[in-house]
Amino acid sequence: MATIVAPQKHRVSGSALEAAVAELKQLLGDERVSTAQAVRDHHGRDESWHPTMPPDAVIFPETTEEVANAVTICAAYGVPVIPYGTGTSLEGHVAALEGGVTIDLQRMNKIVRVSPEDLDCTVQAGVTRKQLNEYLRDTGLFFPIDPGADASLGGMSATRASGTNAVRYGTMRENVLGLTVVLADGRIIKTGGRARKSSAGYDLTRLFVGSEGTLGIMTEITLRLYGIPEAMSAAVCSFKTLEGAVDTVIQVMQSSIPMARIELLDDAQMDAINRYSKLDYPVAPTLFFEFHGTEAGVKEQAEIVRAFAEENGGGGFQWATTQEDRSRLWNARHMAYYAALGLRPGARGLTSDVCVPISELARCIHETKADLAQSSLQGTLVGHVGDGNFHMLYLIDPDSPAEIAEAEALHERLVHRAIACGGTCTGEHGVGYGKIPFMQAEHGPAMSVMRQLKRAFDPSNILNPGKIVKI
Amino acid sequence: MATIVAPQKHRVSGSALEAAVAELKQLLGDERVSTAQAVRDHHGRDESWHPTMPPDAVIFPETTEEVANAVTICAAYGVPVIPYGTGTSLEGHVAALEGGVTIDLQRMNKIVRVSPEDLDCTVQAGVTRKQLNEYLRDTGLFFPIDPGADASLGGMSATRASGTNAVRYGTMRENVLGLTVVLADGRIIKTGGRARKSSAGYDLTRLFVGSEGTLGIMTEITLRLYGIPEAMSAAVCSFKTLEGAVDTVIQVMQSSIPMARIELLDDAQMDAINRYSKLDYPVAPTLFFEFHGTEAGVKEQAEIVRAFAEENGGGGFQWATTQEDRSRLWNARHMAYYAALGLRPGARGLTSDVCVPISELARCIHETKADLAQSSLQGTLVGHVGDGNFHMLYLIDPDSPAEIAEAEALHERLVHRAIACGGTCTGEHGVGYGKIPFMQAEHGPAMSVMRQLKRAFDPSNILNPGKIVKI
Repeated sequence: MATIVAPQKHRVSGSALEAAVAELKQLLGDERVSTAQAVRDHHGRDESWHPTMPPDAVIFPETTEEVANAVTICAAYGVPVIPYGTGTSLEGHVAALEGGVTIDLQRMNKIVRVSPEDLDCTVQAGVTRKQLNEYLRDTGLFFPIDPGADASLGGMSATRASGTNAVRYGTMRENVLGLTVVLADGRIIKTGGRARKSSAGYDLTRLFVGSEGTLGIMTEITLRLYGIPEAMSAAVCSFKTLEGAVDTVIQVMQSSIPMARIELLDDAQMDAINRYSKLDYPVAPTLFFEFHGTEAGVKEQAEIVRAFAEENGGGGFQWATTQEDRSRLWNARHMAYYAALGLRPGARGLTSDVCVPISELARCIHETKADLAQSSLQGTLVGHVGDGNFHMLYLIDPDSPAEIAEAEALHERLVHRAIACGGTCTGEHGVGYGKIPFMQAEHGPAMSVMRQLKRAFDPSNILNPGKIVKI
Repeated sequence: MATIVAPQKHRVSGSALEAAVAELKQLLGDERVSTAQAVRDHHGRDESWHPTMPPDAVIFPETTEEVANAVTICAAYGVPVIPYGTGTSLEGHVAALEGGVTIDLQRMNKIVRVSPEDLDCTVQAGVTRKQLNEYLRDTGLFFPIDPGADASLGGMSATRASGTNAVRYGTMRENVLGLTVVLADGRIIKTGGRARKSSAGYDLTRLFVGSEGTLGIMTEITLRLYGIPEAMSAAVCSFKTLEGAVDTVIQVMQSSIPMARIELLDDAQMDAINRYSKLDYPVAPTLFFEFHGTEAGVKEQAEIVRAFAEENGGGGFQWATTQEDRSRLWNARHMAYYAALGLRPGARGLTSDVCVPISELARCIHETKADLAQSSLQGTLVGHVGDGNFHMLYLIDPDSPAEIAEAEALHERLVHRAIACGGTCTGEHGVGYGKIPFMQAEHGPAMSVMRQLKRAFDPSNILNPGKIVKI
């Protein structure tokens, strides 16, 4: 089984916990420390099928110093601390595996600074990506990383998130310039800076990005911003075969076209989208494209891509150049998950997240779909294929252990297929505890170095314990 | 004084060293272990003004396993090990501050694999960037990172190098996908993989990139490649004022134009280039541009940039669209260092490498030039200004302690000016030991975390000791 759920074992005694909570109330006041069951439950689950594992208490700090003082208190009592943004992660990242205190950062929602000339800004960790883009609306700038959910920028940094336009703008790895971090002993450090590049020592920023709260708690984030392109247009094109679609992607990526988005949806997913969003796209492997640039540049890019697609059996280009048409198209794409769930009312989704070299993409998808066809389950596929990242969504009855086991077995084979060809078990969702069973297979001897890092940064293992590495 | 040179203090006794060398000869054969003075001296200096500090021996391994075995032997005797690529670094990175064994990786010069479909390749650490691009010539691909010197890709990874086209293609940070690394105890690990993105745990790849051989020795590197653009063109434009040039850069960066290169040269540097390369550019602040894309796209980009430049007092655009003209233009730019030295025969250069937010660039350059004007020294300025990175080259008589001290004082003020506005002491050269005096000012409390990392990875401090952090 891929994702064995550890039973929730509380690490500290009730009296130690009570003492810690009393000190936290002194620090933050009663109103910002909650032990109410509903609040705890809400903070113990994410958007995935993983079970709820509530913390013992939830706190709501408003400043970096409050976070640092709270961590110092918890450290003194050996109480685990779990950072929480919007709870939209997918691998049990926020589950309190050993109990402890969840640090809800949603009140740290200030946009500290925007520098249009420097194309950067600093935000508190609880600011969400939509909030930031709303704030930027009149500046001509935007923050492109778009994981679908309106996640917090702290959470996105912590999971190294990306989404549909990573092919052009990169992931959180490329777009976080610097961080303020609270360490396991309550120290506050700043990493990186505002220079767009630096060779001044170890890349602490990149070390914390993707560390899921296990090495420190990010409280402020400095981000790159981008000018809103002069022109944007989108297009949809269906293909006779999956191979034709993937070959088109390879050709486009080898050209010098700066694609903004290039998304693959399989026939099952197109069927789901048609039903859900009342559309009539052909039920066939389909690519969604988006082009950003100057007016003439975007037109030229689109023509070149159409020629590649036609060579590979793609036809029936549908263009979307107005803002309204583009929104309709991408809304349909963003609703893919709910559309898929709609294929089977009452079902939940077990989502995979492999990323493979593009040359292996067609084979990997083909084998994955063949494996699904031989099972009793339904599934749909969407992919950020410019990056080689795709999600197979297995539709399961959450009350059927047999179906869960079957989906997990399919998922496990998919992950090992991806790792065998040089890929990764998770392109953008992160490890949480759901992906831990695959880490050794993916990283081999390097896992010992990850454990070494965790021990160096968090010798008492109080920072989001049981995530990324078990020590 | 900015760069106090520590006297070379040999860490281990002569007998321990002899025993280690004897074992290394058993491992590699007499021919691949040298203690000849000329070989040691050659490996104890780089291209900068820092003094030669030779190692006690130099070895020439040919495989990762040989490197691992050599490190194991040295570790057993407590002998420092210093990796060496081409010796083109600039901050004393290869100086054997405490003696020890230099591991020359130039015989590890195999290109292991190129995957055109995936736009990636794996090379041994001793492969140089020109060797790789020569090898790629018929594939339609190239590796863009260009620090000027024909450095090894291992050395470029170790110093997080970049160069003129980082504004479009990023630095080594963005272009290393994975590594094979030998750790301080001789263990071999692989980091990263061939997926273009991953959220699977701590970003070990980015931790080793820029670590200058102090956390491990890179032996193989997996790199991103790019399709050669359909069209490229370059242009030179001079400005009435430095501010006009920098304002143009800011406007260009805020637009959606994917600039390939945008380089600033000050009047003194243009004068030097004219004399050295027999050219007749106006002696004024000047921008060198390069555009990559489709035929029409490149033309359009160039027209937009020309309009921005004209708004800011730029005039007399000189275009270079043929390969020959482009080469002549960029050769002149790449010869800037030698051209500057030519202004004062017999002089050597003390090169700075600050990188600042673009909004601070004009002020920072202005103050730096004013400071120079009040000194007795000559200097020239070139900048990768799309990134906010610039190099002030101070021309010094290497036999004049007074001039060295004056240049160091100017440099020190420049670095603190950059740090004060959110910048970094080194954008692309790295720390070595030359930049250590500025690390605390730049990183503050985060320096303790860098020391923590160094201790966790290298408890006996045998990996290139005295570089990046002192412990």
